[in-house]
Amino acid sequence: MFYIIGLGLSDEKDITLRGLEAVKGSSRVYLEAYTSILMISQERLEAFYQKPIILADRDMVETQSDEILANADTEDVSLLVVGDPLGATTHTDIVLRARALGIPTRVIHNASIMNAVGACGLQLYNFGQTVSLVFFTETWKPDSYYDRVKENVKLGMHTLVLLDIKVKEQSEENLARGRKIYEPPRYMSIPTAVSQMLHTESERNEDVLSPETTLAIALSRVGGDADQQRIVAGTLKELLEQPEEAFGEPLHTIVIVGKRVHHMEIEYAEEYAVDKQNWRRVAKEVYGCAEL
Amino acid sequence: MFYIIGLGLSDEKDITLRGLEAVKGSSRVYLEAYTSILMISQERLEAFYQKPIILADRDMVETQSDEILANADTEDVSLLVVGDPLGATTHTDIVLRARALGIPTRVIHNASIMNAVGACGLQLYNFGQTVSLVFFTETWKPDSYYDRVKENVKLGMHTLVLLDIKVKEQSEENLARGRKIYEPPRYMSIPTAVSQMLHTESERNEDVLSPETTLAIALSRVGGDADQQRIVAGTLKELLEQPEEAFGEPLHTIVIVGKRVHHMEIEYAEEYAVDKQNWRRVAKEVYGCAEL
Repeated sequence: MFYIIGLGLSDEKDITLRGLEAVKGSSRVYLEAYTSILMISQERLEAFYQKPIILADRDMVETQSDEILANADTEDVSLLVVGDPLGATTHTDIVLRARALGIPTRVIHNASIMNAVGACGLQLYNFGQTVSLVFFTETWKPDSYYDRVKENVKLGMHTLVLLDIKVKEQSEENLARGRKIYEPPRYMSIPTAVSQMLHTESERNEDVLSPETTLAIALSRVGGDADQQRIVAGTLKELLEQPEEAFGEPLHTIVIVGKRVHHMEIEYAEEYAVDKQNWRRVAKEVYGCAEL
Repeated sequence: MFYIIGLGLSDEKDITLRGLEAVKGSSRVYLEAYTSILMISQERLEAFYQKPIILADRDMVETQSDEILANADTEDVSLLVVGDPLGATTHTDIVLRARALGIPTRVIHNASIMNAVGACGLQLYNFGQTVSLVFFTETWKPDSYYDRVKENVKLGMHTLVLLDIKVKEQSEENLARGRKIYEPPRYMSIPTAVSQMLHTESERNEDVLSPETTLAIALSRVGGDADQQRIVAGTLKELLEQPEEAFGEPLHTIVIVGKRVHHMEIEYAEEYAVDKQNWRRVAKEVYGCAEL
């Protein structure tokens, strides 16, 4: 059996009992280590499972999946994925490959940012499509995400914005010279994300986002211990002006609040507001939450 | 500490290790028993935890939450919720109440249908807002859900449709006479859901759904064992014509496939199609998946 197991969001205790059983019974255990990161080290995970873990980078999962799937028809093999396994195309690929090889597959679900974002108080059924924001460079500032945010904003839906992470990236020079030297991991911070979004707004100028009147909620380490999880709510300008430390350690995520927001959602998130009075004022005057 | 703990989707083994620790350390454990249902009995859960569970109905969670929260400032109290705790307003209420009482609260996340729906092969970031479909009666056929499906369909987004369940409902007569006699639980089946949606379409006639050319995927018992989880894909007409048994035991959910579907999503779900050839044909000709 090929198990593809969601680890949840925070540390080794977020695995489900069903997932842990599968890990314990597997002859090989892989950890997918590029679409997201766990908040703990591989060593801690190995100590916890009392078995070695093989790190699987993008290349291995996407193009050498047969190596992972070897013997999975006669033995149990597990692939661990941070969050839930089936949020991204990457993992459906390997399931399709297993299917083609006639290997029985079992998905063990867990929390992912796609549902745990509910921690900020916004209701999941009020979210529109999800977008990803990549690191801008001097010459490459892709703005196709802006069209999708616009669609959500027009309908009044909330938008979950997933922020870029760079793991195992090579510098252009090292890439050109074929040197397998990797840069330290980078995680997009909330101020960077907001400043990129406002940059796109200033270029496109389609009145989708506004520093003073767009409300947003930043989340980091959702599901972590009380001293780790951080939620910060405010206008885009307020979030931009916070020091990076205000948002805690990565991974970060930001939600753009849609106009159909319910006053209960605003009240719940007010606890996390940089400026509670301004949060409530914008919700009332701009978002039309009359009940506040 | 007041713990609000997601149980995940299927049985007692879907709780996380973190969640189980909290249950073990709690002096009282409540099980929220009306927004969703677990696939196993309360007795089995009690045997597994080796402690009694108090069933909490809607009334208790929504209006008598102080009873649940009593002493939670000095002892640990857990409220168990099927899926993830913060998907529905109902549970934010009790967290707000705990906050007002100065009781520290910790949410322990888990998989819910909102992210585990990825099991059907459709990508989560391509979903628009989520809708709920309630049981129609002779005189009450609410269609506001149709407007939201229309918004998603127009944008090409997938729509997750949550189907009504009736737990602890009274008949009109028993309600009128004040008799606390409850009807057996009812769960909306896939054919009922499809027939209700097609009824609304025929009333509204705004070309949102079509029996022959709208693709949909029915899911039941997502996350359950291989003999429990059931995924069936097809046109609305094909799903309507399946016998109810084809969809397995409740709970059921249905996804309306949006036009921006990627050919990989179609290929993944083809495995579950009632008629694979027709599935692929509609995807190609109507949805414009040229790569198929």
